[in-house]
Amino acid sequence: MGDNLRIFVDCDPGIDDALALAYLTARPEAEIAGVGTVFGNHNVDTTTDNALRLLRLYGAPGVPVARGAQRPLVQPPTLAESVHGANGLGDVVLPAADHEPVAETAAELLVRLARSAPGEIDVLAVGPLTNLALALSLEPRLPELVGRVVVMGGAVRAPGNVTPWAEANTSNDPEAAEAVFAAGFDLTLVALDITMKTEVDAAWLDGLKRIEGERASTTSDFLEFYVAWYSKLFGARACAMHDPLAAAVLLDPALVTAHVDVPVRVELQGRHTRGLTIADLRPGADTSADPRPSVRLVTEVDREAFFKRLTDSLR
Amino acid sequence: MGDNLRIFVDCDPGIDDALALAYLTARPEAEIAGVGTVFGNHNVDTTTDNALRLLRLYGAPGVPVARGAQRPLVQPPTLAESVHGANGLGDVVLPAADHEPVAETAAELLVRLARSAPGEIDVLAVGPLTNLALALSLEPRLPELVGRVVVMGGAVRAPGNVTPWAEANTSNDPEAAEAVFAAGFDLTLVALDITMKTEVDAAWLDGLKRIEGERASTTSDFLEFYVAWYSKLFGARACAMHDPLAAAVLLDPALVTAHVDVPVRVELQGRHTRGLTIADLRPGADTSADPRPSVRLVTEVDREAFFKRLTDSLR
Ligand SMILES: [Ca+2]
Ligand SMILES: [Ca+2]
Repeated sequence: MGDNLRIFVDCDPGIDDALALAYLTARPEAEIAGVGTVFGNHNVDTTTDNALRLLRLYGAPGVPVARGAQRPLVQPPTLAESVHGANGLGDVVLPAADHEPVAETAAELLVRLARSAPGEIDVLAVGPLTNLALALSLEPRLPELVGRVVVMGGAVRAPGNVTPWAEANTSNDPEAAEAVFAAGFDLTLVALDITMKTEVDAAWLDGLKRIEGERASTTSDFLEFYVAWYSKLFGARACAMHDPLAAAVLLDPALVTAHVDVPVRVELQGRHTRGLTIADLRPGADTSADPRPSVRLVTEVDREAFFKRLTDSLR
Repeated sequence: MGDNLRIFVDCDPGIDDALALAYLTARPEAEIAGVGTVFGNHNVDTTTDNALRLLRLYGAPGVPVARGAQRPLVQPPTLAESVHGANGLGDVVLPAADHEPVAETAAELLVRLARSAPGEIDVLAVGPLTNLALALSLEPRLPELVGRVVVMGGAVRAPGNVTPWAEANTSNDPEAAEAVFAAGFDLTLVALDITMKTEVDAAWLDGLKRIEGERASTTSDFLEFYVAWYSKLFGARACAMHDPLAAAVLLDPALVTAHVDVPVRVELQGRHTRGLTIADLRPGADTSADPRPSVRLVTEVDREAFFKRLTDSLR
């Protein structure tokens, strides 16, 4: 487990996206085969520039970065500056990028990588799922061509974050999420159900400050902005670790200590519930006759092991 | 608290409706001022006949019973025979009713009672909310004319029961529920969130069998049918006590040990989520700017005290 993972990262950095990239770049057995960017926490020009700067910061400057969708499949885009700051990285200014994005779009890069090494590329999707949906349109066999897909998104039993009931990545492109959940990927869903109960606390955040080096100190600076927002929500100095938890689940599947295999749908038509992720979690529910393929909804993780590995990734 | 309560009961008996009537009729300080019936667990002819028979069984034969809505405001009706049996009472045949329904509809009876004693009639609504919505149309000042309203319905964070996400009473008439939740009643909501974690177990059910008298033995017979259905769901001999818990919350408000005051809406337009009850339960959520009035969503009750009083009501 964990040998020579080749990973396509689809992201919208974004502070927690930054920590996901830190997590992946810290592990020699994980190779980031490519990065796709997407609107979400900021517009796609900014998330693309942020991805390039973050790869430089975290010591993976040569990774190809492909600019992806600038807007959702159907609805108009919205941003999240209150959570991630005016530059998408908590107003921390990083050294400029040292290379350009590739000429392909994110969807094209993903399809090319998957075709060139069938079954060998895993996907970590931690932004709106627009690029994955576009890649499915370009290559309907994508679910067979890639390995595991870990998605950060959705809120099944947990409250939402952009609306009282919908999570940001899913809400930012509900049609794309619905297409991805229907496609038959080997898909693990890291939803708010698990990320909102895997928050790091003041002790963890203070421990990060004591680690020397730019990797830790800059990440800690990102988190100051993020924590200010999340502390209001948690009522204590703490913040959710959405995207790095998804990265950890991809690299370290044994961190998942409980899950449910269940078909997941996205409500597209509700007046109040558009963007809501729904799954039949009734006790004894039998979804065997449901034509929709199941995804692996993470319900419990080994918190302490995750926090330790997250710290280690920032040393 | 609890002196001289005058209660209008709107119901669709229904096995758990029967236990709600048992609970109310057992208490001398509670007077059932009238009963309205509605389609739901069965068609309204059957639920009306059942209400009359149950009032005879439980020793309150003179209570006026008004036949209410035979169908939802908008959608076609559905029934629940698998849960409540072919006659709506677990196939237990009760002695025939000893009086006729009144000439008024349930909505008319409720409005007349409320106008005749402003502020003095409390409402227990344990079926689809069609009659209450119709009464609101007949008398828009109804929220000021009645006292407390306790509704069994909805599923905010709990899974649903008729669909994976929607509860039966709300799902059976979503438009009616939306109208009632918007109206400004002093409304306490006893949703699946609390009723599905307040199930009685084998010991309670066996205890009921040891109580002498027709009141207990017939109720126990109803429950045999109900338990067979619920035991599959709970994976043990147990069943939910939806409607009697709502009755208990009306008579004994101190049984509620935790609640949230929050505006509740019903999704009317969703493809998957029509009938879903939604509320902003995010930590730190501020609903003060929401124009919709809050309802009191029950989140914890004193289980043991409720079970004891439920037993006492059947002696
Ligand atoms: Ca992200
Ligand atoms: Ca009922």
